[in-house]
Amino acid sequence: MNKKERLEELFKEFPGIGPRQAKRFVYFLLWKSPNYIQELSKSISEIKQGVRRCQECNRYFDQSESNNNLCNICSNKSRENGQILILEKNPDFENIEKMNIWGGKYFLIGKNLKITEKDPQSKINLFSLIKKIKEEKIKEVTFALSLNPEGELTMDWIKEQLLPLIKDYDFKITELGRGISLGTEVEYTDKITIEAALNNRK
Amino acid sequence: MNKKERLEELFKEFPGIGPRQAKRFVYFLLWKSPNYIQELSKSISEIKQGVRRCQECNRYFDQSESNNNLCNICSNKSRENGQILILEKNPDFENIEKMNIWGGKYFLIGKNLKITEKDPQSKINLFSLIKKIKEEKIKEVTFALSLNPEGELTMDWIKEQLLPLIKDYDFKITELGRGISLGTEVEYTDKITIEAALNNRK
Amino acid sequence: MNKKERLEELFKEFPGIGPRQAKRFVYFLLWKSPNYIQELSKSISEIKQGVRRCQECNRYFDQSESNNNLCNICSNKSRENGQILILEKNPDFENIEKMNIWGGKYFLIGKNLKITEKDPQSKINLFSLIKKIKEEKIKEVTFALSLNPEGELTMDWIKEQLLPLIKDYDFKITELGRGISLGTEVEYTDKITIEAALNNRK
Amino acid sequence: MNKKERLEELFKEFPGIGPRQAKRFVYFLLWKSPNYIQELSKSISEIKQGVRRCQECNRYFDQSESNNNLCNICSNKSRENGQILILEKNPDFENIEKMNIWGGKYFLIGKNLKITEKDPQSKINLFSLIKKIKEEKIKEVTFALSLNPEGELTMDWIKEQLLPLIKDYDFKITELGRGISLGTEVEYTDKITIEAALNNRK
Repeated sequence: MNKKERLEELFKEFPGIGPRQAKRFVYFLLWKSPNYIQELSKSISEIKQGVRRCQECNRYFDQSESNNNLCNICSNKSRENGQILILEKNPDFENIEKMNIWGGKYFLIGKNLKITEKDPQSKINLFSLIKKIKEEKIKEVTFALSLNPEGELTMDWIKEQLLPLIKDYDFKITELGRGISLGTEVEYTDKITIEAALNNRK
Repeated sequence: MNKKERLEELFKEFPGIGPRQAKRFVYFLLWKSPNYIQELSKSISEIKQGVRRCQECNRYFDQSESNNNLCNICSNKSRENGQILILEKNPDFENIEKMNIWGGKYFLIGKNLKITEKDPQSKINLFSLIKKIKEEKIKEVTFALSLNPEGELTMDWIKEQLLPLIKDYDFKITELGRGISLGTEVEYTDKITIEAALNNRK
Repeated sequence: MNKKERLEELFKEFPGIGPRQAKRFVYFLLWKSPNYIQELSKSISEIKQGVRRCQECNRYFDQSESNNNLCNICSNKSRENGQILILEKNPDFENIEKMNIWGGKYFLIGKNLKITEKDPQSKINLFSLIKKIKEEKIKEVTFALSLNPEGELTMDWIKEQLLPLIKDYDFKITELGRGISLGTEVEYTDKITIEAALNNRK
Repeated sequence: MNKKERLEELFKEFPGIGPRQAKRFVYFLLWKSPNYIQELSKSISEIKQGVRRCQECNRYFDQSESNNNLCNICSNKSRENGQILILEKNPDFENIEKMNIWGGKYFLIGKNLKITEKDPQSKINLFSLIKKIKEEKIKEVTFALSLNPEGELTMDWIKEQLLPLIKDYDFKITELGRGISLGTEVEYTDKITIEAALNNRK
């Protein structure tokens, strides 16, 4: 395999990128200036340098945000209200945090399980979440995963891991409420959604 | 305009049908058997014969369902629980009624207002709804319109008409609860939805 | 089955119309004025009255176009140049005839064969085409069917029927030339197209 | 701008990549192993090292293909048949060359002109093409650009540059033939295509 083909292979691992676009990326780079190439290469090689992964919630944060291994949310005492929101990934965190509606903490799992996953244990590390439940006074763990087969599978699996802890550490497990959302057409909406929306009407 | 062109014009009024498909419909009919043509023509001319519009809730129902001008839901005493669900149209009704989760009555407005509508009064007839509020003991009117600009405009306009009645007839106006629904991706969900879903978590 | 359901069934036979849209059509008609309903019903019942099917080329034409059983092209002596263009359906004919680039005659097959068709004989009637080949001086039969699996299957089947006639009636069988067309992207174009386009370059 | 944001900016220049996917790429890299990151960075920085641009036809080729500044096609005497095929870009070349239907040479322009381009001269370098026309015995230059507004604009502009050379160097300018291609539906095909397809029928 020559260099072009090898780079194509690497690009094919990018999310949403198939063989055609991977090849187009390679030719795109061949046409770009040496300056661009060099800056891109350097930025990629250094991407982890400026960024830390929070030891408690797993999210990536910029070094400048906090000067220890905890992100500025996990090290913020005023957000210790006993509540943890379980999210999949950083962009989910960014979307919710900027809304200013969540005063508790977060826990990111990184990536929802694939439907075909045989060994969830190897993909999702709950160590710091369980440690928190055992050592801090956690009152509620709330799931905010996407409502698709992967998200639901992941939630079910994590719930199974947490349930045995409830009797010793007394906390609730909850999940985001269902209801109608932007674009909902009543004619085509499923029963679970309509039922929840009726129950939560106001 | 010849007969083919005239029929094309009529088909162009069908929902979702443009000029190309209207023309295709005409040629489709030219190729169909005289039996099919005759049955289609007859079914269309008689479509209103077998069907009544309920004088209270506006929905279309089959004559065989009820032998007066009220549909079998509006004439069902056991569904008089003081609750009315406002829907746009028959298919919305059919979707919800088959779920078996609503024990009250319905009121159908027929068609949501267009964003550009100048004269809502001429499009939506609230007479029988208001009569019901005045004469029966209505405790709650719940909006279940689609969550798009037309549905929201329509809800706002109807609310305006109903609000003045509240002080005399003491009822609540509510709407379907917001929340996450099938397919929701947390990364791209709006604040109103997330906030409601957090409030309704369970 | 009640009247609404029966009409839904009939609409489901329309080209491109599934169950949801068929149901929407029925409710659309329920809301329309009696005048519209009556005119639609009448137009459909009379659709074949104003229209004849040409005994030679199969195409539908308006009665006013010609006062016998031949359309104005089949009865036009100046178009008897020994050439016949095989088309699928009326809209194909209308598209080509308005271009003013074909001086010969046409033959319409009505509808391309489905890929799963077991009995082509029952679907495509070549009687008047074969009669023409035998009785008039036909020099060339040209296929202008759409370039998709159905069109290619249909062309292959008709060719098989016509080939045995060649030794007695001496005519050519041809088909539209391949080449690049609007929107062609060289990167994704197949070999047959590129090869033909190179051969036909000018 | 921090490192993540800077890398996002760089990814946004990739073909077909918008802000959302650029951000997803960054998080994707944060989750990948240091090995992957290092290999990707290195492959990008070296992408031009293994690759040369042919001085005659402009195409990029792997160093191993030829050990001088001409690609293996431009340095292949047996392909000097006086014919040059004008293509836009490498993927177009790869698609055609693997078909084994072109025995002549190629000339790649790199990228079609944008519709809004004010200064084509600065974007397309015809120097080596014109040199070839002047010094070798070129009999025909054939355009094989995509059939969209950019491709047609580019062809027109290059033709203008080449036309003055014809009287001194006696060569033909041709372009790929039009015709029907996979997926063509006769009902919706334009006149130029149908006319060419009729002329090229066989």
